Amino acid sequence: MARPISGEATSLVFRGGRFAAGTRRVPAEVAVAISVNGSTHAVMMATPDHLEDLALGLALSERIVATPGEIERIDVEDAELGLDCRIWLTPERAASYVARRRQMTGPVGCGLCGVESLELASRTLPLVGAGVTLRPEAITEGLQAMARRQDLGRETRAVHAAGFLDAGGTLVVLREDVGRHNALDKVAGHLAARGLDPAAGFLAMTSRVSVELIQKAAVMGCGLIAAVSAPTGLAIEAARGAGVTLVAVVRGDEFEIFTHPRRIAGALDVEGASDAA
Amino acid sequence: MARPISGEATSLVFRGGRFAAGTRRVPAEVAVAISVNGSTHAVMMATPDHLEDLALGLALSERIVATPGEIERIDVEDAELGLDCRIWLTPERAASYVARRRQMTGPVGCGLCGVESLELASRTLPLVGAGVTLRPEAITEGLQAMARRQDLGRETRAVHAAGFLDAGGTLVVLREDVGRHNALDKVAGHLAARGLDPAAGFLAMTSRVSVELIQKAAVMGCGLIAAVSAPTGLAIEAARGAGVTLVAVVRGDEFEIFTHPRRIAGALDVEGASDAA
Repeated sequence: MARPISGEATSLVFRGGRFAAGTRRVPAEVAVAISVNGSTHAVMMATPDHLEDLALGLALSERIVATPGEIERIDVEDAELGLDCRIWLTPERAASYVARRRQMTGPVGCGLCGVESLELASRTLPLVGAGVTLRPEAITEGLQAMARRQDLGRETRAVHAAGFLDAGGTLVVLREDVGRHNALDKVAGHLAARGLDPAAGFLAMTSRVSVELIQKAAVMGCGLIAAVSAPTGLAIEAARGAGVTLVAVVRGDEFEIFTHPRRIAGALDVEGASDAA
Repeated sequence: MARPISGEATSLVFRGGRFAAGTRRVPAEVAVAISVNGSTHAVMMATPDHLEDLALGLALSERIVATPGEIERIDVEDAELGLDCRIWLTPERAASYVARRRQMTGPVGCGLCGVESLELASRTLPLVGAGVTLRPEAITEGLQAMARRQDLGRETRAVHAAGFLDAGGTLVVLREDVGRHNALDKVAGHLAARGLDPAAGFLAMTSRVSVELIQKAAVMGCGLIAAVSAPTGLAIEAARGAGVTLVAVVRGDEFEIFTHPRRIAGALDVEGASDAA
């Protein structure tokens, strides 16, 4: 079933005003279907590894299940045109899933008008707990250590990475994927499958921070997400509402805190700073 | 109806081992529902400008319509929780749309199994026509000129840009968006609404190239796409099959051609190079 996660592409390189033959490592990108009890929930383009974790992480982040125990098993099959991840719920969960299904599958083409779909899309996030307090260096050094482990990214320059680090900044798990949402779902699935507590550390992303990443962090119950690039306005708003500390623009020894600075030691010492800021 | 496309966020900046108060421009990110004849087709997070172009571009790229003339009108309304783009088809098109609807809305939660959904997702692309032949400098200088016009990107470092340039490398239209697919759909909508021929120039992206961007270029009938970052394996495969010239890793005066080099003057002079490569 294993598919390679990267391959070699030939190219013509234009450099110094001339063309020459070249090669480049490129990441694989495969259609992945996630079905729940035999009916498709989503199809996405993904890097073809850690697919059980992807399916579990997605099932949790989209609240198809509340715990891994509500899943009886996940089968991954290679279906030529892509990979088919089949989630089978326990009988108890299956009954309530069918009842909720109509709502969950709302946004696409099920007869809802635009306003109804916007209401479904703007779901209320859970408020995360206190979580950890970190030294600033746990973030800067943690992300530098993570960067050194991004083999597929170094090789292809065309994937994103998500990681989970403990409160000291030590990398617990790293996942690279052509889709940043997939990378984060794979991390979520890894933690859930092993019973590791997302509140005991922090999430790191190599990408920008859009609202969906905050939604996933909040649903995981993780109180801090740190990203290499910048956030959107809605991501800041969602993080503020869910009690998530949003750290972004992590570059070398510098970063910016956009919400709930209380989880970073020393941040509230700035004159005028408050955790509400 | 106009919403701002960026705003000011306050932050705490960690730099030189100390915290200080700071501010940063961040891009707006708004839920946008696209409905067709009163039923939602998709909900996406987008930069809230050029929404009629976004709706038109998406309707074309997802083949809801074949031409702008099949749309009677597009209404954009601010629905508080997001923006609601309502596409109304002509009566003729509406009839065939209803017949195709079941298929088009397949992938998400409409009772299809994973394998059926993968079949729907791997749609056949049209083969693009001959299109233009470019000097290499049209690409390098065109993308440099485009970079100078990316105001929202410079301000926020958190959006992507898509552009359409003529065969000489002059920028015709530039769109910036928190989603790179949205940016390209806005460009497609702009061209279609004004009757500009996508085959008469080339597309440029500031992002990586995943397979969806190639699909959109092919459906537009544009023979060349040039991107700042690297492609995936599936994007290369799709470009080869659709006859699209895929240029990527455009940096300064350099770039790489992955498929169909015939559209770049001089590229086929390399020993062993063929357009099939």
